Amino acid sequence: MAGFATRLHQQIQRKRTPALIGIDPRWDWLPSEIRQSAAAAGGSQSEIVARGFERFSCEILELAAEHVAVVKPQVAFFEQYGVPGLQALQTVMRKARQLGLLVIADAKRGDIGTTAEAYAAGWLAGEDPEAAAWPADALTINPYLGGDTLEPFASLARDRGAGLYVLVRTSNPGAAEFQDRLTEGTRMYSAVASAVVRVSEKYRRDEDSYGDVGAVVGATWPEQLQELRALMPRVPLLVPGYGSQGGTSADAAGAFAADGLGAVVNSSRGINFAWRRPGYQEQFGEGRWREAVAASIGEMIADLAENTAAGELRKRS
Amino acid sequence: MAGFATRLHQQIQRKRTPALIGIDPRWDWLPSEIRQSAAAAGGSQSEIVARGFERFSCEILELAAEHVAVVKPQVAFFEQYGVPGLQALQTVMRKARQLGLLVIADAKRGDIGTTAEAYAAGWLAGEDPEAAAWPADALTINPYLGGDTLEPFASLARDRGAGLYVLVRTSNPGAAEFQDRLTEGTRMYSAVASAVVRVSEKYRRDEDSYGDVGAVVGATWPEQLQELRALMPRVPLLVPGYGSQGGTSADAAGAFAADGLGAVVNSSRGINFAWRRPGYQEQFGEGRWREAVAASIGEMIADLAENTAAGELRKRS
Repeated sequence: MAGFATRLHQQIQRKRTPALIGIDPRWDWLPSEIRQSAAAAGGSQSEIVARGFERFSCEILELAAEHVAVVKPQVAFFEQYGVPGLQALQTVMRKARQLGLLVIADAKRGDIGTTAEAYAAGWLAGEDPEAAAWPADALTINPYLGGDTLEPFASLARDRGAGLYVLVRTSNPGAAEFQDRLTEGTRMYSAVASAVVRVSEKYRRDEDSYGDVGAVVGATWPEQLQELRALMPRVPLLVPGYGSQGGTSADAAGAFAADGLGAVVNSSRGINFAWRRPGYQEQFGEGRWREAVAASIGEMIADLAENTAAGELRKRS
Repeated sequence: MAGFATRLHQQIQRKRTPALIGIDPRWDWLPSEIRQSAAAAGGSQSEIVARGFERFSCEILELAAEHVAVVKPQVAFFEQYGVPGLQALQTVMRKARQLGLLVIADAKRGDIGTTAEAYAAGWLAGEDPEAAAWPADALTINPYLGGDTLEPFASLARDRGAGLYVLVRTSNPGAAEFQDRLTEGTRMYSAVASAVVRVSEKYRRDEDSYGDVGAVVGATWPEQLQELRALMPRVPLLVPGYGSQGGTSADAAGAFAADGLGAVVNSSRGINFAWRRPGYQEQFGEGRWREAVAASIGEMIADLAENTAAGELRKRS
């Protein structure tokens, strides 16, 4: 069985980009054609929203599949709408797998002992999409409860060829409050990074150059990103905060190894709702939203290739 | 609108106990009569498990409703079984509300900005069970991302008369790894507790003696529990770790104010699967599992009344 990081890197090399497209549907921002057709089919408000989310997300997947290796549905937006919302999420995740995309479920789960096992069993499908109710290749998880609570996730991930991204240094403005506190001579995020390295190495297959336990480190904090890349050399990184949150490709550059591997850089809003962005709004408008999405994906891929080591991926045959 | 803590304390005074019953179904441990009847109705494996979980959980609710104020379904166990599992969870939560029980959804969610808003909107029903897809009175949340990420939850909680329990010092063996690190002269959990106090006070209604932003502090660490009770005098506590995890009523005693209010103490496995416990196994066995559950609830209530300030609740008319 191939580990997650190996499968991810194979796909990144094939698509020649580390761009990760977030799937973040929000009802008020959906193109009116999607909202109208979702409403026309009737049902409860949640069913209507879920139908709109499913259609919109599947269109984004179709637009992304040719160009990128991996997508990241934000579970919260679907979960907000109850059972219909989560049914839509499941359909979207299955569709992504059918299109050959790797799926990182951004659920930020975390709990202790057998409860952690239940989350792991529910989400970490890994190589076989049928292996879990929610067919994710990888899952984001929260480390606050302690390194012992990462173990049930890491253990099942190895069994299923799945991956994890542990929140280490997040992209939000208040991330520093706890994550940057000086603790026993180091920063809290460094202590978490050490636990990630410990667990990632424990479960890494000898033949794999990267472990399947990765880390989330925001592009909005480039210094910490460089420091954490050095602290976790064999840990795959998921870098949020590019685009709408203010991070640039130059900010994200520190995440990559010299060969352009080792990290994926996420953009969600800037891609999903590209036609609302200044410039794009004038050029495309809502009527041509699909073209705006496609153009924004192309722009992101070019930006990463130009300003990070991801450009190395384009130099190979 | 009454805040969560006020509604909780009213119910605790009515039932005269701070016992919180966790709803933690596990397929392999269900009474065989439940498993058999769930399987007999057919469907996929997930549908069968979900049906068993729903029946079993609703029976626990019926047995608990007369005696306790509040229950805590563990979301992971339902989520593991996909859409059917989460449908069962919704049914169980609705049933609890119909029985007059307050519901704390133990989902340990946490995310940034608008994503945190989505989780809040999806879970925090508060006073009106129809206000959210998942009709929780309160939700457990994870603080690692920073105090700013607690705000969207706290803001909506106030609007809806809902509550929060922020993970501060958890009950698992590895909790100390990050939570007890010395940070800038204090422990990490104290820094988190300070943020909880800050957010709890910011949103507390003047007329309420407790805020609606509470904290999770494990009974398995009685010293930290006493310290944290003192640091957060107006913050309602949720105390896990009693019973199967090894915490005793004496360990939990530090969570209470002198009047027996201010905390709920949780037991899950020890109640749900009481007939598997030594002593109970001989006395009841699987055939009389309902009686074992009822007896274990009575035993817990008596134990808390005898060994904590919760005994004060029994002295009032």
